Amino acid sequence: MNIHDETLKMKLASPLLSASSLETRNKALALIRESLNAHKEEIFEANRKDLALAEETGVPAPVKKRLKFDEAKLSDVTEELTGLMALPDPLRNITLARELDQGLTLYRVTCPIGVIGVIFEARPDALVQISSLCLKSGNCAILKGGKETTWTNRVLFSLIHQAAIDAGLPENCLLQAEQHNEIDELLECHDTVDLLIPRGSNAFVQYIMNHTNIPVLGHADGVCHIYVDKEYDKETAIPLIVDAKTQYPAACNAVETVLIHRDVAKDFLPGLAKALRDAGVKLRGTEEVNEITPVEIIPESESFHHEYVDLIIALKIVGGVDEAINHINTYGSHHTDCILTQNAETAEKFMTLVDSANVYQNASTRFADGFRYGFGAEVGISTSKIHARGPVGLEGLLSYKYKLFGHGDIVGDYASGKKHFIHKDL
Amino acid sequence: MNIHDETLKMKLASPLLSASSLETRNKALALIRESLNAHKEEIFEANRKDLALAEETGVPAPVKKRLKFDEAKLSDVTEELTGLMALPDPLRNITLARELDQGLTLYRVTCPIGVIGVIFEARPDALVQISSLCLKSGNCAILKGGKETTWTNRVLFSLIHQAAIDAGLPENCLLQAEQHNEIDELLECHDTVDLLIPRGSNAFVQYIMNHTNIPVLGHADGVCHIYVDKEYDKETAIPLIVDAKTQYPAACNAVETVLIHRDVAKDFLPGLAKALRDAGVKLRGTEEVNEITPVEIIPESESFHHEYVDLIIALKIVGGVDEAINHINTYGSHHTDCILTQNAETAEKFMTLVDSANVYQNASTRFADGFRYGFGAEVGISTSKIHARGPVGLEGLLSYKYKLFGHGDIVGDYASGKKHFIHKDL
Repeated sequence: MNIHDETLKMKLASPLLSASSLETRNKALALIRESLNAHKEEIFEANRKDLALAEETGVPAPVKKRLKFDEAKLSDVTEELTGLMALPDPLRNITLARELDQGLTLYRVTCPIGVIGVIFEARPDALVQISSLCLKSGNCAILKGGKETTWTNRVLFSLIHQAAIDAGLPENCLLQAEQHNEIDELLECHDTVDLLIPRGSNAFVQYIMNHTNIPVLGHADGVCHIYVDKEYDKETAIPLIVDAKTQYPAACNAVETVLIHRDVAKDFLPGLAKALRDAGVKLRGTEEVNEITPVEIIPESESFHHEYVDLIIALKIVGGVDEAINHINTYGSHHTDCILTQNAETAEKFMTLVDSANVYQNASTRFADGFRYGFGAEVGISTSKIHARGPVGLEGLLSYKYKLFGHGDIVGDYASGKKHFIHKDL
Repeated sequence: MNIHDETLKMKLASPLLSASSLETRNKALALIRESLNAHKEEIFEANRKDLALAEETGVPAPVKKRLKFDEAKLSDVTEELTGLMALPDPLRNITLARELDQGLTLYRVTCPIGVIGVIFEARPDALVQISSLCLKSGNCAILKGGKETTWTNRVLFSLIHQAAIDAGLPENCLLQAEQHNEIDELLECHDTVDLLIPRGSNAFVQYIMNHTNIPVLGHADGVCHIYVDKEYDKETAIPLIVDAKTQYPAACNAVETVLIHRDVAKDFLPGLAKALRDAGVKLRGTEEVNEITPVEIIPESESFHHEYVDLIIALKIVGGVDEAINHINTYGSHHTDCILTQNAETAEKFMTLVDSANVYQNASTRFADGFRYGFGAEVGISTSKIHARGPVGLEGLLSYKYKLFGHGDIVGDYASGKKHFIHKDL
């Protein structure tokens, strides 16, 4: 398969998909749901192959857990498909309507981005979510999943692709890439692919960002912080930090560094240290932290830029909210950062000045997620300030175009002063 | 000057600028207006130096015309500043408010992009427009204008920068780059600069896009089309095409190719050819066009991808709207394309399927412009479908962040089923 040739076909199919009716796109989602249920034994069989291979090749337990596609996962994805069908049409919404002059009317109308390449981790449910989000939003999608789910993805993709065609969508609306070298071919397709969404390790996402001229949406690091202000709530602070670290330590929105106000460090640190240790977390801290509660000293070679993605947490004492903000803007990754305080003014300062996609007061960083935000699903979390930021759902897969309706209008008439713009919003 | 050090200071100043009040930002605009008027003789004097140098070095006439900064230009930019001050605050607007659960409330709030580098042509008024748009939207800006306006830009920048500081904005809100090698340094600043907006020649913009990992907003080509459908309006078609080609041939939104429906080619082409020739336009066309009206045949080596940016136009006959759409999606640059037809259905088809930032029915392509759209001003026109598309005004200089307010909420409670999301829009 030549990826560039295939994506060129998708680029040409993209206007047709963009012009498809909501009815057709929802029909595709309904047929996908139907087909997944009708062929579930085939899917489960393929998934057992992937699981057996994972066993043989010694894939780590957390990855194996995500590989699994069973009745429960099937029920989750079909429920999500139902939810997605119920959402209003994201396309052809008018977001600006303006009379430039009598009989010369401008509309700004939502449309799909076009052709999107998504490279994602070994999770079969992700393939269903991503392809259905792309179809609902009228985008052609190239899907490359983790190699550990090759067999499951092959069955899922073929069912989804056929359902889309049966619903009347163009054949080239979806493409599956299976080979790792196809990622490098994809990175060269800047004339046919409008956007890349890579998900996975820091190094992988960084590699993608450094090796393509195609716009990339996503995040490399997830160095998230919690700052414990001197006016923190004693009852909720420790369980919240434990949740943010341990509820899913491999997630990008798990906390990596806790900053503690110097005035409350002596009171707060010993209890926090005990709770984290009880939850299996290893503590690293500065000399100053170590004087209050014994921790492993953070070596000079390791800065606060580090993302552990593991049951390890960094602790540091700061002089107040300003130092906390500076630390986060310097060492953070602009993903999700939280302040624990009962003082609304301090919280407002923190949330305005911390330059991150998600800024929280008294809530676990783990809430940063498209499902939890009520977006139906997400294709990823962006830390860029261009285009979509934070969890990216349907809205983040949209662009817009300007439509101007005239009656033979020419610019010369306005340049000469014969006519004047009225710019009246409709 | 070390560009990276300077942009690092801007990155650290950026949250402060983002937190500034509308009052402070508008005060900066008012002081800029005041200062430009108070120091106008100094500005005109510097401009005379630039004009004299342009004369000596043989700068082409159209470029010289844009260099000029006189009373009329001063009056234009101060009027624009007044208009910009009157616009509502683009920052801290709530675009989503949702109760995720009782006492757990999510807001999506507009904020600036951060640090933006704008590289623009030799036009002193552009420096005023761009810096004022950036300040109004709370963005730090690095400004690099064309070398032909060095003296004028130096005076303008120093007045604008001082006015911003006097209004209380951070010193590092604006930076002027003057040396061409500083552009290459800027391209390396992906850790400090959030967005680049290059304006200028195709080759220049392409160079920027190919040599940086910073997101780039803009357009390289402006290969715009007009398709004359068989149901075109006889009275307005020819003047409209003449306007689109000749009203400002060097503009990116000037038409480069006219496609004509075969059914009307014999009737339409001779009249069009005469009108264009009378306006000084050279005609290039296919063999089929030449059989109807004599033109210079388009050589094989030159495809319809070509942007003339001159008084030259390409003519081609097509079988109908479908062939026109395919031609435009294949050879166009996704900038601005127009259909001339009285048939609303044909127009709708064209405007939906042509994959361009601006799609027009019966209006000159020259209307694609931020001022004409009523955006107050523009920093450029984007042909990307990521982030802003089409003419980019204040809105295109914005990002957003998610703010979540809780009371010690943890994700574990939702994962365990103890609590459930309500996702109620406020």
